[in-house]
Amino acid sequence: MPHPASPQLPRGGAAASTRAAADAALQAHAAAPVLAALPLPARAALLRNLSHRLAENADTLTDVAESETRLGVERLRGEIRRTQAQLDMFAGLVEEGAFLDVMIDPPDPEAIPVPRPDVRRILVPLGPVAVFSASNFPFAFSVLGGDTTSALAAGCPVVVKAHEGHPRLSELTWELVAQDLPPGVLNVVHGREAGRNLVSDPHIRAVGFTGSTAGGRALFDLATGRPDPIPFYGELGSLNPVVVTAAACAQRGRNIAHQYVTSVTLSQGQFCTKPGLLFLPVDHGMEERLRREIAAVTAAPLLGDWISSAYRATLAELAHHPAVQVLHMAQCSDDSRLSIPALLVTSATALRAHPELLQECFGPASLIVTYASPDDLLDTLRMLPGTLTASVHGQEGEDELLLRSLAAAMDAGRFIWNGWPTGVAVTPAMHHGGPWPATTSPLHTSVGSRAVSRWMRPVVYQGMPDEFLPEPLQRANPWNVPQEVHTGVIG
Amino acid sequence: MPHPASPQLPRGGAAASTRAAADAALQAHAAAPVLAALPLPARAALLRNLSHRLAENADTLTDVAESETRLGVERLRGEIRRTQAQLDMFAGLVEEGAFLDVMIDPPDPEAIPVPRPDVRRILVPLGPVAVFSASNFPFAFSVLGGDTTSALAAGCPVVVKAHEGHPRLSELTWELVAQDLPPGVLNVVHGREAGRNLVSDPHIRAVGFTGSTAGGRALFDLATGRPDPIPFYGELGSLNPVVVTAAACAQRGRNIAHQYVTSVTLSQGQFCTKPGLLFLPVDHGMEERLRREIAAVTAAPLLGDWISSAYRATLAELAHHPAVQVLHMAQCSDDSRLSIPALLVTSATALRAHPELLQECFGPASLIVTYASPDDLLDTLRMLPGTLTASVHGQEGEDELLLRSLAAAMDAGRFIWNGWPTGVAVTPAMHHGGPWPATTSPLHTSVGSRAVSRWMRPVVYQGMPDEFLPEPLQRANPWNVPQEVHTGVIG
Repeated sequence: MPHPASPQLPRGGAAASTRAAADAALQAHAAAPVLAALPLPARAALLRNLSHRLAENADTLTDVAESETRLGVERLRGEIRRTQAQLDMFAGLVEEGAFLDVMIDPPDPEAIPVPRPDVRRILVPLGPVAVFSASNFPFAFSVLGGDTTSALAAGCPVVVKAHEGHPRLSELTWELVAQDLPPGVLNVVHGREAGRNLVSDPHIRAVGFTGSTAGGRALFDLATGRPDPIPFYGELGSLNPVVVTAAACAQRGRNIAHQYVTSVTLSQGQFCTKPGLLFLPVDHGMEERLRREIAAVTAAPLLGDWISSAYRATLAELAHHPAVQVLHMAQCSDDSRLSIPALLVTSATALRAHPELLQECFGPASLIVTYASPDDLLDTLRMLPGTLTASVHGQEGEDELLLRSLAAAMDAGRFIWNGWPTGVAVTPAMHHGGPWPATTSPLHTSVGSRAVSRWMRPVVYQGMPDEFLPEPLQRANPWNVPQEVHTGVIG
Repeated sequence: MPHPASPQLPRGGAAASTRAAADAALQAHAAAPVLAALPLPARAALLRNLSHRLAENADTLTDVAESETRLGVERLRGEIRRTQAQLDMFAGLVEEGAFLDVMIDPPDPEAIPVPRPDVRRILVPLGPVAVFSASNFPFAFSVLGGDTTSALAAGCPVVVKAHEGHPRLSELTWELVAQDLPPGVLNVVHGREAGRNLVSDPHIRAVGFTGSTAGGRALFDLATGRPDPIPFYGELGSLNPVVVTAAACAQRGRNIAHQYVTSVTLSQGQFCTKPGLLFLPVDHGMEERLRREIAAVTAAPLLGDWISSAYRATLAELAHHPAVQVLHMAQCSDDSRLSIPALLVTSATALRAHPELLQECFGPASLIVTYASPDDLLDTLRMLPGTLTASVHGQEGEDELLLRSLAAAMDAGRFIWNGWPTGVAVTPAMHHGGPWPATTSPLHTSVGSRAVSRWMRPVVYQGMPDEFLPEPLQRANPWNVPQEVHTGVIG
């Protein structure tokens, strides 16, 4: 998500040692069978209780979060509600049971050439999971965030590597819920070394990560380079291109300019879905409007000095590039943590000639790219790297071929029509993922109900008597989970 | 599957060059949108036609396969039928449409704090896939085998890296179907260099592999080390432990000895699911029976000289180990390709002290491990590496705790009760996979209907008008695929 690598902040009292990571992983290993054996209603209750704890302590949590992140009280309260909604959604998922993906092939003693056995398939927890929390979502992608929640729903204990941007909040969140959980089911460690040790720890069976492309790649290499490689689900950087057709410019240019700047500068541009590229026709006529909109944005503190200095460095690099013009850039403030809202401009031809411009600038800046023709646009879109989202603003009735081509040209996880990528709806069907470098695993999502499948693996029981089967596979189906039974001709 | 690394056989006329791999990958890249755009009935028809071609040419294919693999005509004809069944199963899956995993969250303009958009999710093909075929399944895991079939079902073009053990069969299989397929949808390349080039080719988006742990690990490292890492699904080595309780020994020792030797020596032990370890109580009393059973097995040619020499080397290493006794080993024949059926014996204590004995010996040999107590057994099972299968032979009514513990101690993909792991039932619910080193990806299977999910990634369309949606997401659902629509309260 955030492009810059996070800082190595020293921490005061808490254990930020090698030992802490190994201990937490060992505790998680011991807790794994306990958590896996919880009946589904108890696992769901555990999640709902975490949601209640967040609600009960929202005031305190918001205060601490604001002091560490400066994201604003309103945004933080909204994020707590979102985090509760995630916990509640996964509790419902666990209660319903379809996430176990139970499939049953009854036996067939008459099958040719050999009798077919009874085959019963279920998903089981992978084991202890390491979660690297994000700087920009101190609740929704942190100690009780989406990765933790989906892993617990899967039945996996979690060790969270707290983000250096909000260590006190991470500790506080953990302290508020630790007493409610079986020992080892959830722990928090601090510091980069602890993070690396977690990824290499033999007890850790999978990793969830939200952060920079460089940091994510280094940990991905560690996870896949182990003697026993483990799955690594990293959400990294994304450019989130937005394409505006000539007809949409003509009809709604004013609105589009306003909404674009709002989306770019929301939470000071510190979203993984911030639109980093806006494709406009050369004669868009929106220049003055865009300049006024961005000039009206007030600078505000970024998540931390390390985000701010990385933002300023990337912005300077892009702004001084010979193929780039600065449409507007705010004055540099004496307060080094303050953002500098900015819009830059280049052409599609120049972008193709200068792929070094295709880098995420994490903060309230975006690059406007003008195109001379549909082909000029399509040629440029085809060279974009994988991205979380791709948006198109057009008019219904416009050249369908053009619009379809736009979609086909973009290697994205989510296509948005006449909308903006920020403000991800946390609903069951949502997909938050995409091809590299948007994520390290294009098959998976970190938002939505399918996020749970990252932490589970299939197991089949063949010819097994009922008494040795897990409840969801038993013939009487005591937990009443959905069982997909294949009757009739098979194979 | 096969433990030994395969040979670098020179090929006569066919193109086994760097160029061939790059060309095939480029053709697959060009074919990807064509295949992805085929309506589901047409995609299913394509698979059924491949099945028909196999049936039509079964005699010729069997002759060529037998000349290259020496697996025996009956076994090869059975394998062709199995391969047809796989194609037919996936054709049915494609026609039915549930594999697209369509989920729809309808919009909610009244949602708090912001209106919720219309969100429609579907799985789309990942793009061109490289498939490394197996020595020991010249049909079922080769040019038209399970990896190819599931990838085509997903809508992904395939480039097969033919196995060096059956290059002529691979070419013939391809020639029989090439005319029926759109150009680039299926190609075959030869040679190790071509294989490596495929895994590194920017047009290849995922890899399926069946083979040795060493070879699979090298290619896994290549796939995950790319500038843009891609999923690598490798099925590697497996020990397939079988546990027999004292009660089962007493009741059915004779049968168990016979069935064990049959399973170990089926197709000369050249199955990935061959039971490599048999755990018996120390006082099992089956020694003489086992010796007679293995002595009665006729040596037969292995898949190739390279398999045979690797088998002889591994067998010699195990047989000469100071902690191992030879129960029976056939005479070494002058024909270097002939197998040497063998049973070796060690104790659970010795196995714990000598983890170097935990290696797959690909061929008709197996290690009997005697245990002195339930704890002796459980301690040993807990140290076993991940495996495709784990089997338990017991009597109903025996100590349930013991039997459950057995299952829990084994890091396996499939648990079998009173049965044998060879002869995998090709049914929708089947799981053929497991934790490392059984596979490189514990989440996935290479047999059964869920094998298709290895080659697909989710995409969401947000607020999209019907005319820009793929058919399975359209409101009228013209292809009549299952749509999971979430009505009522969400999130």
